[in-house]
Amino acid sequence: MRTIEDLLQDIIAFRDERNWKQFHTPKDLAISISLEAAELLEVFQWSGKDLVVEKKREKIEEELADVLIYCGLMADALDMDIDEIITKKLQTNEKKYPVEKVYGKSDKYTELK
Amino acid sequence: MRTIEDLLQDIIAFRDERNWKQFHTPKDLAISISLEAAELLEVFQWSGKDLVVEKKREKIEEELADVLIYCGLMADALDMDIDEIITKKLQTNEKKYPVEKVYGKSDKYTELK
Amino acid sequence: MRTIEDLLQDIIAFRDERNWKQFHTPKDLAISISLEAAELLEVFQWSGKDLVVEKKREKIEEELADVLIYCGLMADALDMDIDEIITKKLQTNEKKYPVEKVYGKSDKYTELK
Amino acid sequence: MRTIEDLLQDIIAFRDERNWKQFHTPKDLAISISLEAAELLEVFQWSGKDLVVEKKREKIEEELADVLIYCGLMADALDMDIDEIITKKLQTNEKKYPVEKVYGKSDKYTELK
Repeated sequence: MRTIEDLLQDIIAFRDERNWKQFHTPKDLAISISLEAAELLEVFQWSGKDLVVEKKREKIEEELADVLIYCGLMADALDMDIDEIITKKLQTNEKKYPVEKVYGKSDKYTELK
Repeated sequence: MRTIEDLLQDIIAFRDERNWKQFHTPKDLAISISLEAAELLEVFQWSGKDLVVEKKREKIEEELADVLIYCGLMADALDMDIDEIITKKLQTNEKKYPVEKVYGKSDKYTELK
Repeated sequence: MRTIEDLLQDIIAFRDERNWKQFHTPKDLAISISLEAAELLEVFQWSGKDLVVEKKREKIEEELADVLIYCGLMADALDMDIDEIITKKLQTNEKKYPVEKVYGKSDKYTELK
Repeated sequence: MRTIEDLLQDIIAFRDERNWKQFHTPKDLAISISLEAAELLEVFQWSGKDLVVEKKREKIEEELADVLIYCGLMADALDMDIDEIITKKLQTNEKKYPVEKVYGKSDKYTELK
């Protein structure tokens, strides 16, 4: 079973073989994450909830991978530990969305009573 | 050292304790990834390249974590293996961006000669 | 009946009273349009097609206006004529999406046979 | 000098000749605005502030027009008056960003003292 670190090393190797780190300002990486997220969203444009995902599975996999790859590149560029920031955010979310208030509800936390 | 699977289990546990899977259509997850990516990008609005990242580090960590969490939720909803899709996409990118053509260049692959 | 120019003058007056033109690089304006579009999209997160638009009408109006205001600011910053660029794009789209091929179909033009 | 209404009529005519109104749910229009905004932003990816705009002018015009066209379609779908919503939002912004506090500053209003 591969670790997060293993996967990140593959992503960084790809970047460094091309000498691309020099372009990876945090701002442009944030733009890139946003653009890849838009390409993922485009798969669902005009689709309704009933998109036959199977027909688009390969496209979705590619675009989701692109978002994740740029997230990995940003984590590396800013020296952030992915496991740590996710664990910390889940803890924050535990407080924002206490189970007893949000169970089975999709309301945003700001709208919770 | 934690595996990708370990981290994903934490994300899924958070979702399932709240009975939120029912809301997680692929389309709404794709929207959510896009919205979180925009919140991450917002940190860099009006900033120039010279944003003092340290002052915004906590905010960036939180927003990057949010993008990653939703990516994990989409992978789970569509039964995609994160390690596999990233590895496959890196292989595709190896062909799209051969080292000898793109070394040290930021040109988009469609513009490569 | 007000012209496009009248409306644009109001937007520019707002900017210039605040001496904000200096911040309006095309790149940051493009980021801003994207961020405002995300805020508009957020209204529809988790909503299904059956969002009761009336309950959110005011929010939608505000966010749609924000997108349009930043588009106006970009047009001004780059000295583009809104009427002209829309008219030109509609002509391009006429060719990309000929009526006889796309009537009543939502397929993307690249998928048209 | 053309009015906003004139321009909107051209956009609506394009849509109706293709019998496309049936696809234009507010949610999918919001997605479309977001996707077109991303295509506009893509022009500035990896560019620095010093993008030579002239080389990309035609692309920027097309993408900015696309954002505006979808905004027009959303305004029509939800029966919103573009002049009215922009005028109202500028009034709201006048209060959020009083000239004496924000003159020459790019700080977000939430950060104003």
